[in-house]
Amino acid sequence: MIFKRVTIIGVGLIGASLAMALRKAGLAGEIVGFGRSESNLRSARDRGIIDRYSLALDEACRDCNLLVLATPVGRFQVLLSQVKEHLAKGTIIMDVGSVKAGIVPDLEAETPDGSFFVGAHPIAGSDRSGIDPASAKLFEKALCFVTPTENTDENALKKITDLWTKIGARVKKVSPREHDMIFSSVSHLPHMAAYAMVNTVNDIDPSFLGFAGSGFRDSTRIAMSSADIWVDICRLNRSYIIEHLEVLIRNMDSLRSLLEAEDYGSLEDYFTRAKKSREGIE
Amino acid sequence: MIFKRVTIIGVGLIGASLAMALRKAGLAGEIVGFGRSESNLRSARDRGIIDRYSLALDEACRDCNLLVLATPVGRFQVLLSQVKEHLAKGTIIMDVGSVKAGIVPDLEAETPDGSFFVGAHPIAGSDRSGIDPASAKLFEKALCFVTPTENTDENALKKITDLWTKIGARVKKVSPREHDMIFSSVSHLPHMAAYAMVNTVNDIDPSFLGFAGSGFRDSTRIAMSSADIWVDICRLNRSYIIEHLEVLIRNMDSLRSLLEAEDYGSLEDYFTRAKKSREGIE
Repeated sequence: MIFKRVTIIGVGLIGASLAMALRKAGLAGEIVGFGRSESNLRSARDRGIIDRYSLALDEACRDCNLLVLATPVGRFQVLLSQVKEHLAKGTIIMDVGSVKAGIVPDLEAETPDGSFFVGAHPIAGSDRSGIDPASAKLFEKALCFVTPTENTDENALKKITDLWTKIGARVKKVSPREHDMIFSSVSHLPHMAAYAMVNTVNDIDPSFLGFAGSGFRDSTRIAMSSADIWVDICRLNRSYIIEHLEVLIRNMDSLRSLLEAEDYGSLEDYFTRAKKSREGIE
Repeated sequence: MIFKRVTIIGVGLIGASLAMALRKAGLAGEIVGFGRSESNLRSARDRGIIDRYSLALDEACRDCNLLVLATPVGRFQVLLSQVKEHLAKGTIIMDVGSVKAGIVPDLEAETPDGSFFVGAHPIAGSDRSGIDPASAKLFEKALCFVTPTENTDENALKKITDLWTKIGARVKKVSPREHDMIFSSVSHLPHMAAYAMVNTVNDIDPSFLGFAGSGFRDSTRIAMSSADIWVDICRLNRSYIIEHLEVLIRNMDSLRSLLEAEDYGSLEDYFTRAKKSREGIE
């Protein structure tokens, strides 16, 4: 399985790493980049991450066999709507976004006849963004969710599954809704909590932040994530995030009640339950 | 300034590291250890961290010039009450506990005439506990809070301040209440949030924990902290933790309301405020 021409829309950490991994695995002929920053695209080309780039979307996507949507997730639909009339027959379109139920139906609707959409979400990242930390190894041993629906073409699904497997990822197939429920709980909610924790200290006394140790730093590192990307994620996975925020607030309120009641036995049980679960994934 | 005999009660990460740092800086003559586990004490002696140990508290503390309380914070008062009649005139007693207002008055009350109590809290630690990760360098460049009160002896305070400075720490003097307000917000509250986050996923679906990525892992690492130590901290800093939990719950509820209202502009402002503050301490 080789994609003769791969177009990567959004050459950031994930897009660039995927280009490097596809090339290393011999899965791509030519790799074309598209993005908003020419200096970034030029840098990616000069490092051999992509073969060439275009600042014109139609030109970048012409005759590609695999189109990868790797911009911030809120941009996918409008980009696909702009490019769809320029796609060749048989093109496979794959996104790598971190929400699915909120975007897959729209992306499927934008997919032109003769092209095939498959949703994917590799669980890989870095503290840093952009092409500098990009690596062909980013997806090795990483989990990659692939989210087929009743509309998904079986052949395209197999190719996308093979692609991730061959670059070293472990593929897990789930429905878009199941994906979003999982990620609301283990990714989106911790981001909400981290933003809330920092602003809580801001509310108490911003000068106290200067006394933060490694526990605070580790637990709030994700509060440095891009605000606009996280607004997009909130918009696209709103229902689950609201539902899960309510579960988190109930848990916080239980803690408060146990402290009010000085019920230290139940408090220890509560901490122990969390400790054991967290140790289970260490 | 040299302490001819230092007794460390509780030879764990902090106690052992302090012993190593005092020896390296030439600040201690003999170092004596006391604890509940003879195998741990023997191991500390065999590695040269302490010179000798005793399983009898009165024997361990006899004629010491500096007594360090380095067990879990909930044990300090009872230990000091047991040992106080065996202390020589002029002994300085220092604790290294992570709460202060909830213990300093009691420890001052237990301090016998002719001995001098000074509270301290070095901000240093490790993912691991016990003597294996202990290091003479643990306190280098670390912040160390010293918490004098109107009862604190000026000479003893100076000696303790000098001690921490000479082993490389930056000393900050604050009142016990100020200390506890700061640590409730930047340490105790994040621990509550981490325990609550893990149990929230337990409530939603424990199997989802298997899909946690680095963001979840980093933000909940402190949920692996010892449950009994954190119950002690909750007991001893209960009022501030309750007060700050309420601020955190209000922040979470604001987030929920912004999502309910689909007020993405305010959501972005909220995230941006947190992001900037967190970047400010990176």
